[in-house]
Amino acid sequence: MSESVITEPHRISEVRVTPVAFRDLPLLNVVGVHEPFALRAIIEVVTDSGLIGLGETYGDAGHLKRLQLAAAQLVGVDVWNINEIATRIRTALAADSSKAGHGMSGMVTGSSTADRVLSPFEVACLDIQGKAIGRPVSDLLGGAVRDRVEYSAYLFYKWAGHPGQDDDHWGEALNPDQIVDQARRMIAEYGFNAIKLKGGVFAPEEEAEAILALRAAFPDHPLRIDPNGAWSVESSIGVGRKLAGVLEYLEDPTPGIEGMAEVAREVPMPLATNMCVVAFDHVKPAVAQQAVGVILSDHHFWGGLGRSRVLAGICDTFDMGLSMHSNSHLGISLAAMTHLAAATPNLNYACDTHWPWKSADDDVIVPGALNFEQGAVAVPTGPGLGVELDRDALARLHEQYLASGIRERDDTGYMRRFQPDFDPSAPRW
Amino acid sequence: MSESVITEPHRISEVRVTPVAFRDLPLLNVVGVHEPFALRAIIEVVTDSGLIGLGETYGDAGHLKRLQLAAAQLVGVDVWNINEIATRIRTALAADSSKAGHGMSGMVTGSSTADRVLSPFEVACLDIQGKAIGRPVSDLLGGAVRDRVEYSAYLFYKWAGHPGQDDDHWGEALNPDQIVDQARRMIAEYGFNAIKLKGGVFAPEEEAEAILALRAAFPDHPLRIDPNGAWSVESSIGVGRKLAGVLEYLEDPTPGIEGMAEVAREVPMPLATNMCVVAFDHVKPAVAQQAVGVILSDHHFWGGLGRSRVLAGICDTFDMGLSMHSNSHLGISLAAMTHLAAATPNLNYACDTHWPWKSADDDVIVPGALNFEQGAVAVPTGPGLGVELDRDALARLHEQYLASGIRERDDTGYMRRFQPDFDPSAPRW
Ligand SMILES: [Mg+2]
Ligand SMILES: [Mg+2]
Repeated sequence: MSESVITEPHRISEVRVTPVAFRDLPLLNVVGVHEPFALRAIIEVVTDSGLIGLGETYGDAGHLKRLQLAAAQLVGVDVWNINEIATRIRTALAADSSKAGHGMSGMVTGSSTADRVLSPFEVACLDIQGKAIGRPVSDLLGGAVRDRVEYSAYLFYKWAGHPGQDDDHWGEALNPDQIVDQARRMIAEYGFNAIKLKGGVFAPEEEAEAILALRAAFPDHPLRIDPNGAWSVESSIGVGRKLAGVLEYLEDPTPGIEGMAEVAREVPMPLATNMCVVAFDHVKPAVAQQAVGVILSDHHFWGGLGRSRVLAGICDTFDMGLSMHSNSHLGISLAAMTHLAAATPNLNYACDTHWPWKSADDDVIVPGALNFEQGAVAVPTGPGLGVELDRDALARLHEQYLASGIRERDDTGYMRRFQPDFDPSAPRW
Repeated sequence: MSESVITEPHRISEVRVTPVAFRDLPLLNVVGVHEPFALRAIIEVVTDSGLIGLGETYGDAGHLKRLQLAAAQLVGVDVWNINEIATRIRTALAADSSKAGHGMSGMVTGSSTADRVLSPFEVACLDIQGKAIGRPVSDLLGGAVRDRVEYSAYLFYKWAGHPGQDDDHWGEALNPDQIVDQARRMIAEYGFNAIKLKGGVFAPEEEAEAILALRAAFPDHPLRIDPNGAWSVESSIGVGRKLAGVLEYLEDPTPGIEGMAEVAREVPMPLATNMCVVAFDHVKPAVAQQAVGVILSDHHFWGGLGRSRVLAGICDTFDMGLSMHSNSHLGISLAAMTHLAAATPNLNYACDTHWPWKSADDDVIVPGALNFEQGAVAVPTGPGLGVELDRDALARLHEQYLASGIRERDDTGYMRRFQPDFDPSAPRW
């Protein structure tokens, strides 16, 4: 019989928070258009035993300030005690009432500040746990039930390029034909087996036409559209009925639990959300009103991977489906999303990812760990998250952050530079 | 920087299921009286790396058969993949439709068979994980938020001794004065700071008198009564109103979610249950009807420690309290309960335990790991569960099982040997 391994404690000795920026394309949405750079914060948790764990989160100034408040309280904590880390973070944030810096440009504002701040530290601690014991993070979440995680082709209406710059390599997508072309290119390159269209940009009828064009071009791909609450209840019901049998789910057609519940009663497909249920506090009223059929989880605002598993259990218990939301992100987040999805038996939809919109050379991890094949990412089997920080790349993306001048994601402000009367209010149609 | 530990896989090479019996006292309840021996099954999961993990569960024949069915499917599985273990167990049990062997003498019949069978294997795998990495099980559950776990004094009406035997050292408890005496002795010995009375034995008015006598004798101890569904809705409302301000919660006064919901609307204290919500399937209707304010979790029927954490998250999300249920048990279960409670922030009541009713020398673990001080058990800090199997004791309790002749817990059948017309049906009053 082999001896038990008695490992040393792994106490946090240092936490580094590094804001970075990476190039982004002019992707259109209900609140405006993506700026030339997207912001993220890279978290390094260092232990007295010499291990380093990685986390990734939003890079907005308000959030950065809260990350630093939290980080200052974590020295000395054992990385195995996530509960203690959560308690310290809640305490550190208790005095902070600032609201800015959700990282989602006003589209999602109701998530829990404590859970948003906890998330990257929890992921980093799981990364350390995994490294310490030679196990992938998926093992720490109950074990992988699949060895590859399916993602969806996440289509966007977009301009040909950022104003004043050359056209980007994706080019313009402002009508159904161009959306179908975008889908063809993305699927040819990544092999995705499901398609999501970000809507809320044009009138619902036009966006429904794009969905029907996608259905004609891709008869077997599950389809979704997400107008981010841009539609009235009446419009949502109209589109929902028009797209009966075409959509696997209709994502956030209209704002708020009440509105979603009204729509849900009148359309044949499940409604999905990452807007009206974005924190544990929202679950009870949403269940009571039967407002949503699918929750799009996101460990970045649900408090990390462990709390996302609780959310998964809630969905299972209350007969709701579970899918996964994405913002523009780098490789640390993709690794974390992949481990979580791998270990979540009832995550039964292809996950969202903005990955194809990012330049391959814009990342902070050593390339090669995460690859798409047939629309899926193989779950890393090495210790921890299975990705390695590239310090030169981190320094470069941090320089890019400093040079970008961007400190808060502001799709609306950027849009108004070109269309001064742009109105991001929703519902709009 | 120290190197990451790359640990070997820990694949299950053997599973041993050993039924045991330990002496029990004539404790009265709604379905009858405890037999002279209580049954348990001790699970040993052995890995190819030479580690052994421990689990403990019910010892009824029907359950033993299902444990063996499950055990046969687990060889080769990595102990880190709890999801895979759960899947294999569900598959192994799919063909089995037998219902007997819940281990609770008909009091709790609606729990999930798959979760009941999964539980001891999951606990054993967590024990191995902890041993492999030199960490207590509480660390694998998110980290201890307390270093000691409070239990309650669990009082029972009882006969002086088993019929035909000498009086036991606890003696008779059939009226309020004797119940108060029992409480005094138990609290003097264990230091408990909360008191639960098992009811359902005498008319509700008599049992309410016992609670009032306890209140007079212990003005600062939170009090609970649990008649196991023995009362009608009307009686439950009457007792609930009479004991306003006296009970911290009223446990299962009446059977079923509908009845509990009726009572809940009319009494001032929260209702608790380990009878009408005993599986994830019951949570949604119970929430919809606002039937219960506190769920008494029990990892033995909720699918183990990980799934009990999901239940804890559900309680937190749906504004329900969380306490912990107990059956007659040995030290492996007490260790598992203590790790779970330690790592569950919202477990905010003293847990139930039958521990004081067990002879100290009737156990399968090496003595000394678990001790009560001031009503609480210190959370073991050694690897895994922190308890060690005593093979001589296991053999002795297995012999006791064989000699006992008892193969199914049957409080009703035992009661009818002395009171042939005993009727266990509920509600009774
Ligand atoms: Mg969305
Ligand atoms: Mg009970």
